[in-house]
Amino acid sequence: MIVHMRTFVIVAHKAVTTPKFSLNDLPGGAGRMDIIARCINASLFLSHDLRRDVDTYAVLLGDPSPPVTVRFNGEKVRYLSPDERSAAALIKKALEKGAPATGEEESTPGVYISKRSFADLVDSLGSIVYLHEDGEDIRNIELTGDEAYVLSDHQNLTPEEEAVLEKKGARKVSLGKKLYHADHCIVMANHELDLRNI
Amino acid sequence: MIVHMRTFVIVAHKAVTTPKFSLNDLPGGAGRMDIIARCINASLFLSHDLRRDVDTYAVLLGDPSPPVTVRFNGEKVRYLSPDERSAAALIKKALEKGAPATGEEESTPGVYISKRSFADLVDSLGSIVYLHEDGEDIRNIELTGDEAYVLSDHQNLTPEEEAVLEKKGARKVSLGKKLYHADHCIVMANHELDLRNI
Repeated sequence: MIVHMRTFVIVAHKAVTTPKFSLNDLPGGAGRMDIIARCINASLFLSHDLRRDVDTYAVLLGDPSPPVTVRFNGEKVRYLSPDERSAAALIKKALEKGAPATGEEESTPGVYISKRSFADLVDSLGSIVYLHEDGEDIRNIELTGDEAYVLSDHQNLTPEEEAVLEKKGARKVSLGKKLYHADHCIVMANHELDLRNI
Repeated sequence: MIVHMRTFVIVAHKAVTTPKFSLNDLPGGAGRMDIIARCINASLFLSHDLRRDVDTYAVLLGDPSPPVTVRFNGEKVRYLSPDERSAAALIKKALEKGAPATGEEESTPGVYISKRSFADLVDSLGSIVYLHEDGEDIRNIELTGDEAYVLSDHQNLTPEEEAVLEKKGARKVSLGKKLYHADHCIVMANHELDLRNI
């Protein structure tokens, strides 16, 4: 059996890079950390199971010390429940540990923190899919199962971030004419890949 | 333009029927109310918009006084944000108001509470789709756009609940071979309907 690896990258333009945020106010004080928590849920959870073939990166770009990148690995992650507070609590723990000067460090099992920028991260990945309403229809394109899917939070990617993707040769792929939340896009992409058995 | 109405029904076997639960502990003390909150999000949210053609019912069957049914109407709902606490807070407000002896009552704009049972609710709806892994492939069936989709929380429907659906002539429809969380199923069903423009 060929083992594929799905990757999701969520750019969190406002999500804070300090652990000093309240789990009771993820949308406000934590800079829409609720979106990131839902994206982690959408990428990793099956019913009573985790997707072991998924790596999810959240690139946190909020104050006070961006960028910070937190990675959740579906094979190794522990202590993750589907609710928003659970994923946010693991991000908080990662931020408490802090990112090392170079490379990434494990903060809790299967969760890793680094100072990687969006550009560095994209550069380190293979084939990139940029989910965008103007792209090719996801149901009509070839996919290997090893792509990295890039999504933005409630704000669009900046021109600079889009330039990073263009330089990398990312494909624009569309989920339809409607505009969806990032976590819903992840569910749809996972579903399409599941149906293809890749 | 023909206006269709999508309906989602989530059976919440453990979700409490008292407002005395903490928004800080939706998975525990509130009886997996986090699942219901995510289902409301999945059914109603588009990016920076709401799905005005959707009615979502949560049938709460937890202690102390089940059943209580809470309906969110996409056209009329106000004060709803995508995070779990927001939907749960509106359910809490509905439970504070309490269900009337007969019929349903509006607790906050676009949110309604009643004592309807699952059987009564199903009986009042039109064509029913029971999302189940053993059903027909959703991509290969005809849909009008006016169906009601029935889903269960983290527990399966009971034999009694399945009998209600069978008596009503519900169609079993599948989203694939994998087992998904209820909110993810709602995203997938909404996506399929969106792509059909119904």
